[in-house]
Amino acid sequence: MTEIPAFAVPDLTDLRDTTLAQRLRHRIDHKTKPLGSLGRLESLALQLGLILRSETPALEQPQMVVFAGDHGLAARGVSAFPSDVTWQMVENFLAGGAAVSVLARQHGLALTVVDAGVARDIAPRDGLLVRKIAPGTADASVGPAMTLAQCHAALQAGADVVRQLPGNALLLGEMGIGNTSSAALLMSRLTGAPLVQCVGRGTGLDDAGLQRKLAVLRKALKANANASAPATQPVQVLAALGGFEIAMMCGAVLEAAAQNRVIVVDGFIATSAVLVAQAVQPLVLQRCVFAHQSDESGHARLLAWLGAQPLLHLGLRLGEGSGAALAWPLLGSACRILREMASFADAGVSERQA
Amino acid sequence: MTEIPAFAVPDLTDLRDTTLAQRLRHRIDHKTKPLGSLGRLESLALQLGLILRSETPALEQPQMVVFAGDHGLAARGVSAFPSDVTWQMVENFLAGGAAVSVLARQHGLALTVVDAGVARDIAPRDGLLVRKIAPGTADASVGPAMTLAQCHAALQAGADVVRQLPGNALLLGEMGIGNTSSAALLMSRLTGAPLVQCVGRGTGLDDAGLQRKLAVLRKALKANANASAPATQPVQVLAALGGFEIAMMCGAVLEAAAQNRVIVVDGFIATSAVLVAQAVQPLVLQRCVFAHQSDESGHARLLAWLGAQPLLHLGLRLGEGSGAALAWPLLGSACRILREMASFADAGVSERQA
Repeated sequence: MTEIPAFAVPDLTDLRDTTLAQRLRHRIDHKTKPLGSLGRLESLALQLGLILRSETPALEQPQMVVFAGDHGLAARGVSAFPSDVTWQMVENFLAGGAAVSVLARQHGLALTVVDAGVARDIAPRDGLLVRKIAPGTADASVGPAMTLAQCHAALQAGADVVRQLPGNALLLGEMGIGNTSSAALLMSRLTGAPLVQCVGRGTGLDDAGLQRKLAVLRKALKANANASAPATQPVQVLAALGGFEIAMMCGAVLEAAAQNRVIVVDGFIATSAVLVAQAVQPLVLQRCVFAHQSDESGHARLLAWLGAQPLLHLGLRLGEGSGAALAWPLLGSACRILREMASFADAGVSERQA
Repeated sequence: MTEIPAFAVPDLTDLRDTTLAQRLRHRIDHKTKPLGSLGRLESLALQLGLILRSETPALEQPQMVVFAGDHGLAARGVSAFPSDVTWQMVENFLAGGAAVSVLARQHGLALTVVDAGVARDIAPRDGLLVRKIAPGTADASVGPAMTLAQCHAALQAGADVVRQLPGNALLLGEMGIGNTSSAALLMSRLTGAPLVQCVGRGTGLDDAGLQRKLAVLRKALKANANASAPATQPVQVLAALGGFEIAMMCGAVLEAAAQNRVIVVDGFIATSAVLVAQAVQPLVLQRCVFAHQSDESGHARLLAWLGAQPLLHLGLRLGEGSGAALAWPLLGSACRILREMASFADAGVSERQA
């Protein structure tokens, strides 16, 4: 068996008791505002300062990377949309018409689409990286979605994508008809939650569709029951139940964490990739900013399991990285508060009364 | 008694059944995304389209206006900070060092500070409008905070400020040591909620401070018990219990609504100004986008009473307009989704399966 590459991720926890963490807290607490009054933005500022190792952090050349892949499971009727939508949406991303394209333009995010394993071949062009492992995964309801070798190749490709992109922030996006199924399977196997708590309506299944999806996913868990125990073998679980776009995202997360990039996690699918990554290397969570809590059933529970505090609660369930893009300005605000806000002393403002 | 000026606010409800509303809904529903998958952003896009009367709305020259005033009540120890902080923070806004200054710069919001009634005189300069009604309100714990004539002058001044500013969007900000007390009093009197449900820790009172604040505010309600019934006389309630900055914000809201500007409401104090404005003219609520639910006790309940769905839940309790500024990019996103996202037909993406 091939070993997964080692991702050396420095531990920021140690830093929490160091001078930098103390200086960051002091800096935040002495800005001209009541103590704690910027709420979640204050813990975000502290986190960004620790990741970027600066009292005056600045986000540079943010990269939105949308990983796309098809799923053998989709043929089993687990999605409200046909598999062709995967490549059609890749075309839409590249043409600038998708939600993530629009939001990336709004916020100055460089957008890269990665063909991780789309069933159809997509013509090469600017903004597209073809890293296709295979034209879609195998049907996980009858056996592993991918071989272990394919899974390692996808992890490596995800890491390589990050290595070749500049900047200090990675925003995770994805596209793949059927991928809420993979995410639900990974969640159930790796967290131990009953499948019914992990499965949702995805792009909009009705009640009958949801029952069909649940039945197919039960078969998939059974067909892959020999995947090793989660705590020790997350990559085997990923190979059995994941997708190429999820595996590549997982590799990207591990590499971005090793490089101390800020990782902005989108919705349920992106969170499932982080779930696998943190099982490989728990320290990746220190670099993850969870953009939002989506409306996809299971996401709230998965975020809670990870101890994540999402920034937005907007009832989104689109994926693509749209929620990560929507939350992006808040990261900029947190950095600017550290960099540009006056302290009580600077501004000559009286502190609180005794 | 002086009449309050008539604010002719067109009714957008009528528009909900018209061609524009139907076209907006159709446009949103046929964008390349699962139906409803942009969640709260979709209802926001519909609202902005209706306010700005366009299927392709664009926000232009957004104006952040921070109304500042002092409160007679502050001398009773209702705040953790001394009254001097009001003028000191006005200086900080103008110098660019406050949270709202930083966030307005980030998002290209023009920032105007209005001296509605700060105790100290502030030297005139760019970015400051001096519309001082008086150097602070009277102590509401012993009688009305302002005369009815002062209240009318403040409402008129707020409307005038909006008239002289360009653009189609107004973001509400405020500064005034003691103004969570005024907001709590207005909320209790106008919604009928018990005072204890309206009063919070403001900038950071401890338990003893909170009890002191509650006792002072009970006195204020009693001292102004003759203010007429809320439903018919909201302006008398505003005069008795409000502040100059709140009254001026209220006038600004009424005028902005009459002009069909988008109104972005910040936290507890700004919401209390909207509470009074909608008691005068209920249609103003159609133009209000509630930026966030703050951590100040009472705000969640007040938002629910108004039927408002705030965009952000970040545990903020700073005021100044900081929450409105943080939410601002979401309004831009909602407009861009309408303007720039492709439809299924445009992009050649398959619609959902039967």
